[in-house]
Amino acid sequence: MNLKQLSELLHLSQTTVSRALNGYPEVSAETRRRVLEAAQRHGYKANSNARKLATGRAGAIGYVLPVGRNVDLDPHFVEFLAGLGEHALMREVDLSLTPAPREREQEAYRRIAASRSVDGVYLSSMRNDEQRIALVRELGLPFIAHGRALDPAAGYGFVDIDNEGAFFDAAQLLLQLGHRRLAFVNGDTDFTFAVHRLDGVKRAMAGHGLPDAALRHHAAAMTEGNGYRLAMALFRDADPATRPTAVLSASMFTTLGIVRALDQLGLKMPRDVSVISHDDVFPFLKPDSFTVPLTTTRSSIRAAGARICERLVNIITGEEKAPLGEIWPVELVVRASTGPAPRAG
Amino acid sequence: MNLKQLSELLHLSQTTVSRALNGYPEVSAETRRRVLEAAQRHGYKANSNARKLATGRAGAIGYVLPVGRNVDLDPHFVEFLAGLGEHALMREVDLSLTPAPREREQEAYRRIAASRSVDGVYLSSMRNDEQRIALVRELGLPFIAHGRALDPAAGYGFVDIDNEGAFFDAAQLLLQLGHRRLAFVNGDTDFTFAVHRLDGVKRAMAGHGLPDAALRHHAAAMTEGNGYRLAMALFRDADPATRPTAVLSASMFTTLGIVRALDQLGLKMPRDVSVISHDDVFPFLKPDSFTVPLTTTRSSIRAAGARICERLVNIITGEEKAPLGEIWPVELVVRASTGPAPRAG
Repeated sequence: MNLKQLSELLHLSQTTVSRALNGYPEVSAETRRRVLEAAQRHGYKANSNARKLATGRAGAIGYVLPVGRNVDLDPHFVEFLAGLGEHALMREVDLSLTPAPREREQEAYRRIAASRSVDGVYLSSMRNDEQRIALVRELGLPFIAHGRALDPAAGYGFVDIDNEGAFFDAAQLLLQLGHRRLAFVNGDTDFTFAVHRLDGVKRAMAGHGLPDAALRHHAAAMTEGNGYRLAMALFRDADPATRPTAVLSASMFTTLGIVRALDQLGLKMPRDVSVISHDDVFPFLKPDSFTVPLTTTRSSIRAAGARICERLVNIITGEEKAPLGEIWPVELVVRASTGPAPRAG
Repeated sequence: MNLKQLSELLHLSQTTVSRALNGYPEVSAETRRRVLEAAQRHGYKANSNARKLATGRAGAIGYVLPVGRNVDLDPHFVEFLAGLGEHALMREVDLSLTPAPREREQEAYRRIAASRSVDGVYLSSMRNDEQRIALVRELGLPFIAHGRALDPAAGYGFVDIDNEGAFFDAAQLLLQLGHRRLAFVNGDTDFTFAVHRLDGVKRAMAGHGLPDAALRHHAAAMTEGNGYRLAMALFRDADPATRPTAVLSASMFTTLGIVRALDQLGLKMPRDVSVISHDDVFPFLKPDSFTVPLTTTRSSIRAAGARICERLVNIITGEEKAPLGEIWPVELVVRASTGPAPRAG
């Protein structure tokens, strides 16, 4: 009897059954009792080593970890890992990280494929000039992408959030509030998520008759320091009649820096400047962890990590047959950092 | 010819040779040319699969990743991973993460040992009631600890920072500045690092004749939200004549929350309250990313990640023979958030 059969027998989801077996606290005592009883009665026992031997699988999924002196892993990666790890536990797979600098990543994928140390890989931080998809296909490595390349017709499995729609909604809200001079402190536009977000802002502006050139757009690594520096460049010594009245920000860290700059310049949210931040849902730094709680575009990167693991394992086992492009809607959560555009002055 | 022989031939360190071969930017063009030339002439080629087959090694080190609904991975883990990954690249090993909730971690180590999927493991977040060291010894798994258990005589390899000394120095500075009413927003004291830090603060206070009970000590997960909540509890509606005049903080995220609370209460650093924060050196949030730059106890967790990998591989290969306890000194970096204690008022 496998997990699927046990779940069907109990009329419970595989997730619930696995959680009950693994001692997760959110399963009720009664459900846990039923599951454990049934598992014992029907002789269900997760035995990963035996199963791996039987299936010829490595029991691991892989990721090429970007490294190098000038590479900073985004702190949100821990949340992605937390979600991925939670699901990996249920499916009894490990995550194998193969470090590689950008210029040697092709070699890393070749080595992974040759060594059969993993059953599949996930790709992330998808780029405009993405070449990994063609490579892992050529190598015959099962894969899924977190994010997607620019070409939507490529026919591979991915999980992405609707970055275009999220930043369209955010810009749209600002435009409806009367803002016309927008700034966008974006992430690095070598990556597709940042391109999609920029597209969303431009589409909203076009809908209000504003040309692309009207946007003050800056792309940089999403650190507190860059947020501060760019906000200072936008607002210090700027003419109140021409400076931006609203700022879109790519990450909570960037926003920390923007808010610090506004504070130092004596500019108040939302009286002088409205701010909307993207929020990956990060327990260490929340939108209400600001003196003026932030309006955000919200999407849980932890949930994305769990989903990437779930689908990659399904792709490996053959449960997922046709490549599926999955794009999650993003919530716009309005808090106190947005308000009507200041009167011309 | 192996890396060691090639390095000796060139009178260069193995690190430099490996970096040159791996295309790291900080190696000069001239050195890179020499290294590549010599590698070619002497037929040096890293061939990890062949070597793994020859040595019978897995070519991977392992880590049991804590997971569970209520587990938040600390964001500094990405910096640790970045350092570990950089060294793992040079030594051509992967990092295998095995997810496990706390109550099933023993099972995870047993499974790792049985499957021989890794050549050794590192342990981290060492606890007061640490039981993993005895377990991995029993299993015959080579290991190293990041941090250490409370018993210093246990005779195993570890890399730790001098948490006791760091917080002694920090408290000592505050006492020398005339502060007598100290608060400490500590991490979770189930972990030894937090116990060591508390010991350091108490030792400094004892040196000034202050009893342990004079310290306002709070232990909590190191989030912005907890920093805010605890600082609010300490300072809101508190009598200026009895409230703390100085706060020690366990992490940059905690400190963000403390500073937000002080701002909201109209308390200025260092006029009303001095603050010292621990800083793991985190590129996304730096001590000068505060309107009043922070005095910190500073130690790079990225460097610790690299060192853990280096020593674990050396333990696996037998290059490190006697178990070595390595305790790194921590710098006290004085910036603007500390000053003389306010006059009794």
